[in-house]
Amino acid sequence: MQGLAQQLDRFARDRDWKQFHSPKNLAAALVVEAGELLEHFQWLTEEQSRRLAPEQLEAVGAEIADVLLYLLQLCDKLGIDALDAARKKLELNAKKYPVERARGTSKKYSEL
Amino acid sequence: MQGLAQQLDRFARDRDWKQFHSPKNLAAALVVEAGELLEHFQWLTEEQSRRLAPEQLEAVGAEIADVLLYLLQLCDKLGIDALDAARKKLELNAKKYPVERARGTSKKYSEL
Amino acid sequence: MQGLAQQLDRFARDRDWKQFHSPKNLAAALVVEAGELLEHFQWLTEEQSRRLAPEQLEAVGAEIADVLLYLLQLCDKLGIDALDAARKKLELNAKKYPVERARGTSKKYSEL
Amino acid sequence: MQGLAQQLDRFARDRDWKQFHSPKNLAAALVVEAGELLEHFQWLTEEQSRRLAPEQLEAVGAEIADVLLYLLQLCDKLGIDALDAARKKLELNAKKYPVERARGTSKKYSEL
Repeated sequence: MQGLAQQLDRFARDRDWKQFHSPKNLAAALVVEAGELLEHFQWLTEEQSRRLAPEQLEAVGAEIADVLLYLLQLCDKLGIDALDAARKKLELNAKKYPVERARGTSKKYSEL
Repeated sequence: MQGLAQQLDRFARDRDWKQFHSPKNLAAALVVEAGELLEHFQWLTEEQSRRLAPEQLEAVGAEIADVLLYLLQLCDKLGIDALDAARKKLELNAKKYPVERARGTSKKYSEL
Repeated sequence: MQGLAQQLDRFARDRDWKQFHSPKNLAAALVVEAGELLEHFQWLTEEQSRRLAPEQLEAVGAEIADVLLYLLQLCDKLGIDALDAARKKLELNAKKYPVERARGTSKKYSEL
Repeated sequence: MQGLAQQLDRFARDRDWKQFHSPKNLAAALVVEAGELLEHFQWLTEEQSRRLAPEQLEAVGAEIADVLLYLLQLCDKLGIDALDAARKKLELNAKKYPVERARGTSKKYSEL
Protein backbone atom coordinates (compact mmCIF):
# COMPACT_ATOMS: atom_id res chain seq x y z
CA MET A 1 0.00 0.00 0.00
CA GLN A 2 2.93 2.31 0.70
CA GLY A 3 4.53 1.43 -2.62
CA LEU A 4 1.29 2.30 -4.32
CA ALA A 5 1.05 5.63 -2.49
CA GLN A 6 4.55 6.50 -3.70
CA GLN A 7 3.69 5.58 -7.28
CA LEU A 8 0.59 7.75 -7.08
CA ASP A 9 2.63 10.62 -5.77
CA ARG A 10 5.00 10.43 -8.68
CA PHE A 11 2.15 9.95 -11.14
CA ALA A 12 0.57 13.20 -9.97
CA ARG A 13 3.85 15.11 -9.77
CA ASP A 14 4.87 14.02 -13.28
CA ARG A 15 1.62 15.53 -14.57
CA ASP A 16 1.78 18.63 -12.40
CA TRP A 17 -1.55 17.61 -10.88
CA LYS A 18 -0.67 18.33 -7.26
CA GLN A 19 -2.21 21.77 -7.69
CA PHE A 20 -5.64 20.11 -8.11
CA HIS A 21 -5.20 17.63 -5.28
CA SER A 22 -6.35 19.52 -2.24
CA PRO A 23 -7.98 17.25 0.37
CA LYS A 24 -11.31 18.87 -0.49
CA ASN A 25 -10.99 17.98 -4.16
CA LEU A 26 -9.74 14.47 -3.46
CA ALA A 27 -12.72 13.85 -1.16
CA ALA A 28 -15.03 15.07 -3.94
CA ALA A 29 -13.31 12.83 -6.50
CA LEU A 30 -13.62 9.88 -4.11
CA VAL A 31 -17.39 10.26 -3.75
CA VAL A 32 -17.73 10.65 -7.53
CA GLU A 33 -15.94 7.33 -8.02
CA ALA A 34 -18.02 5.72 -5.27
CA GLY A 35 -21.09 6.83 -7.22
CA GLU A 36 -19.71 5.23 -10.38
CA LEU A 37 -19.18 2.04 -8.39
CA LEU A 38 -22.77 2.08 -7.16
CA GLU A 39 -24.02 2.72 -10.70
CA HIS A 40 -23.13 -0.86 -11.61
CA PHE A 41 -25.46 -2.12 -8.89
CA GLN A 42 -28.31 0.38 -8.91
CA TRP A 43 -30.84 -1.65 -10.90
CA LEU A 44 -29.65 -5.11 -9.87
CA THR A 45 -31.40 -7.15 -7.24
CA GLU A 46 -29.25 -8.08 -4.27
CA GLU A 47 -29.15 -11.62 -5.63
CA GLN A 48 -27.91 -10.44 -9.02
CA SER A 49 -25.25 -8.36 -7.30
CA ARG A 50 -23.88 -11.56 -5.76
CA ARG A 51 -23.47 -13.21 -9.16
CA LEU A 52 -21.81 -10.71 -11.44
CA ALA A 53 -20.72 -11.81 -14.90
CA PRO A 54 -16.92 -11.70 -15.47
CA GLU A 55 -17.08 -8.46 -17.47
CA GLN A 56 -19.24 -6.79 -14.81
CA LEU A 57 -16.82 -7.96 -12.15
CA GLU A 58 -13.94 -6.43 -14.03
CA ALA A 59 -15.76 -3.11 -14.45
CA VAL A 60 -16.60 -3.11 -10.75
CA GLY A 61 -12.98 -3.87 -9.90
CA ALA A 62 -11.86 -0.85 -11.89
CA GLU A 63 -14.24 1.42 -9.95
CA ILE A 64 -13.08 -0.05 -6.65
CA ALA A 65 -9.55 0.72 -7.78
CA ASP A 66 -10.47 4.34 -8.47
CA VAL A 67 -11.97 4.71 -5.01
CA LEU A 68 -8.88 3.20 -3.40
CA LEU A 69 -6.50 5.36 -5.45
CA TYR A 70 -8.22 8.57 -4.27
CA LEU A 71 -8.41 7.23 -0.73
CA LEU A 72 -4.66 6.63 -0.69
CA GLN A 73 -3.93 10.06 -2.13
CA LEU A 74 -6.18 11.71 0.44
CA CYS A 75 -4.47 9.81 3.25
CA ASP A 76 -1.05 10.73 1.90
CA LYS A 77 -2.07 14.40 1.76
CA LEU A 78 -3.43 14.39 5.30
CA GLY A 79 -0.77 12.19 6.86
CA ILE A 80 -3.34 9.57 7.81
CA ASP A 81 -2.49 5.86 8.01
CA ALA A 82 -5.58 4.31 6.43
CA LEU A 83 -5.09 0.80 7.81
CA ASP A 84 -4.41 2.10 11.28
CA ALA A 85 -7.53 4.29 11.14
CA ALA A 86 -9.55 1.30 9.93
CA ARG A 87 -8.30 -0.90 12.77
CA LYS A 88 -9.22 1.73 15.34
CA LYS A 89 -12.63 2.22 13.79
CA LEU A 90 -13.32 -1.50 13.89
CA GLU A 91 -12.50 -1.55 17.60
CA LEU A 92 -14.82 1.39 18.15
CA ASN A 93 -17.56 -0.34 16.17
CA ALA A 94 -17.19 -3.41 18.36
CA LYS A 95 -18.09 -1.22 21.34
CA LYS A 96 -20.91 0.61 19.56
CA TYR A 97 -22.40 -2.66 18.33
CA PRO A 98 -22.10 -5.26 21.11
CA VAL A 99 -22.84 -8.73 19.75
CA GLU A 100 -25.78 -9.46 22.00
CA ARG A 101 -27.67 -6.31 21.05
CA ALA A 102 -26.63 -5.94 17.41
CA ARG A 103 -27.21 -9.53 16.35
CA GLY A 104 -29.42 -9.87 13.31
CA THR A 105 -30.46 -6.23 13.13
CA SER A 106 -29.35 -3.47 10.78
CA LYS A 107 -30.35 -0.72 13.20
CA LYS A 108 -27.96 2.12 13.87
CA TYR A 109 -26.15 1.97 17.21
CA SER A 110 -28.12 4.97 18.39
CA GLU A 111 -31.33 2.97 18.00
CA LEU A 112 -30.23 -0.35 19.47
CA MET B 1 -5.04 -5.61 4.82
CA GLN B 2 -5.82 -9.32 4.75
CA GLY B 3 -5.82 -9.52 8.52
CA LEU B 4 -8.27 -6.65 8.58
CA ALA B 5 -10.52 -8.36 6.02
CA GLN B 6 -10.61 -11.46 8.22
CA GLN B 7 -11.46 -9.42 11.30
CA LEU B 8 -14.26 -7.74 9.38
CA ASP B 9 -15.60 -11.08 8.28
CA ARG B 10 -15.76 -12.32 11.85
CA PHE B 11 -17.23 -9.05 13.06
CA ALA B 12 -20.11 -9.39 10.60
CA ARG B 13 -20.62 -13.10 11.20
CA ASP B 14 -20.69 -12.64 14.97
CA ARG B 15 -23.54 -10.17 14.51
CA ASP B 16 -25.34 -12.20 11.85
CA TRP B 17 -24.96 -9.24 9.48
CA LYS B 18 -23.90 -11.23 6.43
CA GLN B 19 -27.54 -11.28 5.34
CA PHE B 20 -27.37 -7.49 4.83
CA HIS B 21 -24.00 -7.49 3.10
CA SER B 22 -24.85 -8.06 -0.54
CA PRO B 23 -22.41 -6.34 -2.91
CA LYS B 24 -25.22 -3.94 -3.83
CA ASN B 25 -25.76 -2.92 -0.21
CA LEU B 26 -22.05 -2.64 0.52
CA ALA B 27 -21.60 -0.37 -2.51
CA ALA B 28 -24.47 1.79 -1.23
CA ALA B 29 -22.94 1.92 2.25
CA LEU B 30 -19.60 2.88 0.76
CA VAL B 31 -21.00 5.88 -1.09
CA VAL B 32 -22.90 6.94 2.03
CA GLU B 33 -19.63 6.97 3.97
CA ALA B 34 -17.87 8.78 1.14
CA GLY B 35 -20.57 11.45 1.42
CA GLU B 36 -19.94 11.74 5.16
CA LEU B 37 -16.26 12.17 4.39
CA LEU B 38 -16.99 14.95 1.91
CA GLU B 39 -19.30 16.64 4.42
CA HIS B 40 -16.27 17.66 6.46
CA PHE B 41 -14.89 19.55 3.47
CA GLN B 42 -17.99 20.92 1.77
CA TRP B 43 -17.82 24.50 3.09
CA LEU B 44 -14.05 24.71 3.49
CA THR B 45 -11.85 26.46 0.98
CA GLU B 46 -9.21 24.26 -0.59
CA GLU B 47 -6.65 26.05 1.54
CA GLN B 48 -8.56 25.33 4.73
CA SER B 49 -8.83 21.69 3.69
CA ARG B 50 -5.04 21.51 3.66
CA ARG B 51 -4.78 22.73 7.25
CA LEU B 52 -7.27 20.76 9.30
CA ALA B 53 -7.29 21.16 13.06
CA PRO B 54 -6.38 17.99 14.99
CA GLU B 55 -10.00 17.21 15.90
CA GLN B 56 -11.12 17.68 12.29
CA LEU B 57 -8.30 15.43 11.15
CA GLU B 58 -9.40 12.74 13.54
CA ALA B 59 -13.02 12.97 12.39
CA VAL B 60 -11.88 12.79 8.77
CA GLY B 61 -9.71 9.77 9.59
CA ALA B 62 -12.72 7.98 11.05
CA GLU B 63 -14.71 8.57 7.83
CA ILE B 64 -11.80 7.37 5.71
CA ALA B 65 -11.75 4.28 7.88
CA ASP B 66 -15.44 3.67 7.23
CA VAL B 67 -14.92 3.94 3.48
CA LEU B 68 -12.00 1.52 3.62
CA LEU B 69 -13.88 -0.96 5.80
CA TYR B 70 -16.74 -1.17 3.30
CA LEU B 71 -14.31 -1.31 0.40
CA LEU B 72 -12.56 -4.29 1.97
CA GLN B 73 -15.84 -6.06 2.66
CA LEU B 74 -17.00 -5.48 -0.90
CA CYS B 75 -13.73 -6.84 -2.27
CA ASP B 76 -13.94 -9.86 0.02
CA LYS B 77 -17.48 -10.53 -1.17
CA LEU B 78 -16.57 -10.24 -4.83
CA GLY B 79 -13.21 -11.97 -4.65
CA ILE B 80 -11.41 -8.84 -5.83
CA ASP B 81 -7.85 -8.02 -4.74
CA ALA B 82 -8.11 -4.26 -4.15
CA LEU B 83 -4.40 -3.50 -4.30
CA ASP B 84 -3.97 -5.54 -7.44
CA ALA B 85 -6.93 -3.77 -9.07
CA ALA B 86 -5.47 -0.40 -8.02
CA ARG B 87 -2.07 -1.22 -9.50
CA LYS B 88 -3.66 -2.24 -12.80
CA LYS B 89 -5.79 0.90 -12.85
CA LEU B 90 -2.77 3.08 -12.27
CA GLU B 91 -1.03 1.47 -15.25
CA LEU B 92 -4.13 2.05 -17.35
CA ASN B 93 -4.29 5.67 -16.20
CA ALA B 94 -0.67 6.14 -17.24
CA LYS B 95 -1.73 5.23 -20.77
CA LYS B 96 -4.93 7.29 -20.72
CA TYR B 97 -3.06 10.31 -19.40
CA PRO B 98 0.35 10.50 -21.10
CA VAL B 99 2.59 12.98 -19.31
CA GLU B 100 3.12 15.29 -22.26
CA ARG B 101 -0.59 15.77 -22.91
CA ALA B 102 -1.95 15.62 -19.39
CA ARG B 103 0.56 17.95 -17.77
CA GLY B 104 -1.01 20.78 -15.84
CA THR B 105 -4.56 20.16 -16.98
CA SER B 106 -7.49 18.57 -15.15
CA LYS B 107 -9.27 17.63 -18.36
CA LYS B 108 -10.70 14.14 -18.75
CA TYR B 109 -8.70 11.80 -20.98
CA SER B 110 -11.50 11.91 -23.53
CA GLU B 111 -10.94 15.65 -23.91
CA LEU B 112 -7.16 15.76 -23.96
CA MET C 1 -40.69 26.61 -6.77
CA GLN C 2 -39.74 30.20 -7.54
CA GLY C 3 -41.15 31.38 -4.24
CA LEU C 4 -39.04 28.78 -2.49
CA ALA C 5 -35.92 29.85 -4.40
CA GLN C 6 -36.48 33.43 -3.23
CA GLN C 7 -36.96 32.34 0.38
CA LEU C 8 -33.74 30.35 0.16
CA ASP C 9 -31.91 33.34 -1.22
CA ARG C 10 -33.04 35.50 1.68
CA PHE C 11 -32.30 32.72 4.17
CA ALA C 12 -28.69 32.55 2.99
CA ARG C 13 -28.24 36.31 2.72
CA ASP C 14 -29.61 36.86 6.23
CA ARG C 15 -26.91 34.53 7.54
CA ASP C 16 -24.14 35.84 5.30
CA TRP C 17 -23.79 32.37 3.84
CA LYS C 18 -23.51 33.41 0.19
CA GLN C 19 -19.73 33.36 0.58
CA PHE C 20 -19.89 29.58 1.06
CA HIS C 21 -22.37 28.95 -1.74
CA SER C 22 -20.21 28.58 -4.81
CA PRO C 23 -21.68 26.15 -7.36
CA LYS C 24 -18.87 23.76 -6.49
CA ASN C 25 -19.76 23.76 -2.81
CA LEU C 26 -23.50 23.50 -3.46
CA ALA C 27 -22.90 20.49 -5.71
CA ALA C 28 -20.84 18.89 -2.94
CA ALA C 29 -23.55 19.62 -0.37
CA LEU C 30 -26.16 18.11 -2.70
CA VAL C 31 -24.32 14.81 -3.02
CA VAL C 32 -23.77 14.72 0.75
CA GLU C 33 -27.52 15.04 1.28
CA ALA C 34 -28.21 12.46 -1.43
CA GLY C 35 -25.95 10.12 0.54
CA GLU C 36 -27.93 10.79 3.72
CA LEU C 37 -31.09 9.97 1.78
CA LEU C 38 -29.63 6.68 0.59
CA GLU C 39 -28.51 5.85 4.13
CA HIS C 40 -32.14 5.24 5.09
CA PHE C 41 -32.40 2.56 2.42
CA GLN C 42 -28.96 0.94 2.44
CA TRP C 43 -29.80 -2.14 4.50
CA LEU C 44 -33.46 -2.46 3.51
CA THR C 45 -34.65 -4.91 0.93
CA GLU C 46 -36.40 -3.36 -2.04
CA GLU C 47 -39.67 -4.65 -0.63
CA GLN C 48 -39.05 -3.00 2.73
CA SER C 49 -38.21 0.25 0.94
CA ARG C 50 -41.71 0.21 -0.55
CA ARG C 51 -43.35 -0.03 2.86
CA LEU C 52 -41.70 2.54 5.08
CA ALA C 53 -43.10 3.16 8.54
CA PRO C 54 -44.50 6.69 9.08
CA GLU C 55 -41.45 7.87 11.02
CA GLN C 56 -39.08 6.52 8.36
CA LEU C 57 -41.15 8.22 5.69
CA GLU C 58 -40.88 11.51 7.52
CA ALA C 59 -37.11 11.17 7.89
CA VAL C 60 -36.81 10.33 4.20
CA GLY C 61 -38.97 13.34 3.32
CA ALA C 62 -36.61 15.59 5.26
CA GLU C 63 -33.61 14.28 3.30
CA ILE C 64 -35.44 14.71 0.00
CA ALA C 65 -36.15 18.28 1.09
CA ASP C 66 -32.44 18.88 1.73
CA VAL C 67 -31.55 17.59 -1.72
CA LEU C 68 -34.18 19.80 -3.34
CA LEU C 69 -33.11 22.87 -1.36
CA TYR C 70 -29.52 22.56 -2.57
CA LEU C 71 -30.69 21.78 -6.09
CA LEU C 72 -32.73 24.98 -6.15
CA GLN C 73 -29.86 27.05 -4.80
CA LEU C 74 -27.49 25.59 -7.36
CA CYS C 75 -29.95 26.35 -10.16
CA ASP C 76 -30.44 29.87 -8.85
CA LYS C 77 -26.67 30.41 -8.76
CA LEU C 78 -26.17 29.09 -12.29
CA GLY C 79 -29.27 30.63 -13.84
CA ILE C 80 -30.66 27.20 -14.72
CA ASP C 81 -34.40 26.51 -14.86
CA ALA C 82 -34.58 23.07 -13.23
CA LEU C 83 -38.01 22.10 -14.54
CA ASP C 84 -37.14 23.20 -18.04
CA ALA C 85 -33.88 21.22 -17.91
CA ALA C 86 -35.80 18.19 -16.63
CA ARG C 87 -38.35 18.42 -19.44
CA LYS C 88 -35.59 18.57 -22.04
CA LYS C 89 -33.77 15.66 -20.45
CA LEU C 90 -36.90 13.55 -20.47
CA GLU C 91 -37.31 14.22 -24.20
CA LEU C 92 -33.71 13.26 -24.77
CA ASN C 93 -34.17 10.08 -22.72
CA ALA C 94 -37.16 9.15 -24.86
CA LYS C 95 -34.82 9.15 -27.86
CA LYS C 96 -32.00 7.33 -26.07
CA TYR C 97 -34.37 4.68 -24.78
CA PRO C 98 -36.90 3.86 -27.51
CA VAL C 99 -39.79 1.84 -26.09
CA GLU C 100 -39.30 -1.20 -28.29
CA ARG C 101 -35.64 -1.63 -27.36
CA ALA C 102 -35.68 -0.49 -23.75
CA ARG C 103 -38.73 -2.43 -22.62
CA GLY C 104 -38.15 -4.55 -19.57
CA THR C 105 -34.38 -4.06 -19.43
CA SER C 106 -32.29 -1.88 -17.15
CA LYS C 107 -29.38 -1.74 -19.57
CA LYS C 108 -27.73 1.58 -20.33
CA TYR C 109 -28.62 3.12 -23.69
CA SER C 110 -25.07 2.48 -24.88
CA GLU C 111 -25.63 -1.26 -24.42
CA LEU C 112 -29.13 -1.59 -25.85
CA MET D 1 -43.89 19.66 -11.46
CA GLN D 2 -46.96 17.45 -11.29
CA GLY D 3 -47.18 17.32 -15.06
CA LEU D 4 -43.59 16.20 -15.15
CA ALA D 5 -44.23 13.52 -12.53
CA GLN D 6 -47.05 12.15 -14.68
CA GLN D 7 -44.88 12.13 -17.79
CA LEU D 8 -42.20 10.26 -15.86
CA ASP D 9 -44.72 7.74 -14.68
CA ARG D 10 -45.83 7.03 -18.23
CA PHE D 11 -42.25 6.97 -19.47
CA ALA D 12 -41.38 4.23 -16.98
CA ARG D 13 -44.60 2.28 -17.51
CA ASP D 14 -44.17 2.32 -21.29
CA ARG D 15 -40.78 0.69 -20.84
CA ASP D 16 -41.88 -1.70 -18.11
CA TRP D 17 -39.33 -0.14 -15.81
CA LYS D 18 -41.52 0.09 -12.73
CA GLN D 19 -40.10 -3.25 -11.61
CA PHE D 20 -36.69 -1.58 -11.16
CA HIS D 21 -38.02 1.55 -9.48
CA SER D 22 -38.17 0.60 -5.83
CA PRO D 23 -37.53 3.57 -3.52
CA LYS D 24 -34.21 1.97 -2.60
CA ASN D 25 -33.09 1.81 -6.23
CA LEU D 26 -34.33 5.32 -7.01
CA ALA D 27 -32.40 6.69 -4.02
CA ALA D 28 -29.29 4.90 -5.31
CA ALA D 29 -29.81 6.28 -8.82
CA LEU D 30 -30.25 9.77 -7.37
CA VAL D 31 -26.93 9.71 -5.55
CA VAL D 32 -25.22 8.33 -8.66
CA GLU D 33 -26.51 11.30 -10.66
CA ALA D 34 -25.53 13.70 -7.88
CA GLY D 35 -22.02 12.27 -8.17
CA GLU D 36 -22.03 12.89 -11.92
CA LEU D 37 -23.09 16.46 -11.21
CA LEU D 38 -20.22 16.93 -8.77
CA GLU D 39 -17.78 15.44 -11.27
CA HIS D 40 -18.07 18.60 -13.36
CA PHE D 41 -16.86 20.66 -10.42
CA GLN D 42 -14.34 18.41 -8.71
CA TRP D 43 -11.15 19.96 -10.09
CA LEU D 44 -12.46 23.51 -10.53
CA THR D 45 -11.71 26.25 -8.09
CA GLU D 46 -14.76 27.82 -6.51
CA GLU D 47 -14.16 30.86 -8.70
CA GLN D 48 -14.11 28.76 -11.85
CA SER D 49 -17.31 27.07 -10.75
CA ARG D 50 -19.00 30.48 -10.76
CA ARG D 51 -18.03 31.15 -14.38
CA LEU D 52 -18.85 28.04 -16.34
CA ALA D 53 -18.50 28.11 -20.12
CA PRO D 54 -21.80 27.65 -22.02
CA GLU D 55 -21.09 24.01 -22.87
CA GLN D 56 -20.18 23.23 -19.25
CA LEU D 57 -23.35 24.94 -18.11
CA GLU D 58 -25.41 22.82 -20.44
CA ALA D 59 -23.74 19.61 -19.25
CA VAL D 60 -24.32 20.65 -15.64
CA GLY D 61 -27.96 21.42 -16.44
CA ALA D 62 -28.41 17.92 -17.81
CA GLU D 63 -27.06 16.39 -14.59
CA ILE D 64 -29.28 18.61 -12.48
CA ALA D 65 -32.17 17.39 -14.61
CA ASP D 66 -31.25 13.77 -13.90
CA VAL D 67 -31.17 14.42 -10.17
CA LEU D 68 -34.55 16.14 -10.30
CA LEU D 69 -36.10 13.38 -12.41
CA TYR D 70 -35.13 10.72 -9.88
CA LEU D 71 -36.19 12.95 -7.01
CA LEU D 72 -39.65 13.33 -8.55
CA GLN D 73 -39.97 9.61 -9.16
CA LEU D 74 -38.94 8.83 -5.61
CA CYS D 75 -41.47 11.32 -4.25
CA ASP D 76 -44.17 9.88 -6.48
CA LYS D 77 -43.36 6.39 -5.25
CA LEU D 78 -43.43 7.40 -1.59
CA GLY D 79 -46.36 9.80 -1.78
CA ILE D 80 -44.19 12.72 -0.68
CA ASP D 81 -44.85 16.28 -1.81
CA ALA D 82 -41.31 17.53 -2.47
CA LEU D 83 -42.09 21.24 -2.37
CA ASP D 84 -44.10 20.88 0.80
CA ALA D 85 -41.28 18.90 2.42
CA ALA D 86 -38.79 21.56 1.30
CA ARG D 87 -40.89 24.37 2.78
CA LYS D 88 -41.14 22.57 6.12
CA LYS D 89 -37.41 21.87 6.13
CA LEU D 90 -36.63 25.50 5.48
CA GLU D 91 -38.76 26.50 8.46
CA LEU D 92 -36.98 23.94 10.59
CA ASN D 93 -33.60 25.20 9.38
CA ALA D 94 -34.60 28.74 10.37
CA LYS D 95 -34.97 27.46 13.95
CA LYS D 96 -31.81 25.36 13.89
CA TYR D 97 -29.79 28.24 12.50
CA PRO D 98 -30.97 31.47 14.17
CA VAL D 99 -29.60 34.49 12.30
CA GLU D 100 -27.66 35.93 15.21
CA ARG D 101 -25.74 32.73 15.89
CA ALA D 102 -25.36 31.38 12.38
CA ARG D 103 -24.23 34.58 10.70
CA GLY D 104 -21.03 34.21 8.74
CA THR D 105 -20.19 30.73 9.93
CA SER D 106 -20.51 27.38 8.16
CA LYS D 107 -20.63 25.42 11.40
CA LYS D 108 -23.25 22.75 11.87
CA TYR D 109 -26.18 23.69 14.13
CA SER D 110 -24.94 21.21 16.71
CA GLU D 111 -21.70 23.19 17.03
CA LEU D 112 -23.08 26.72 17.04
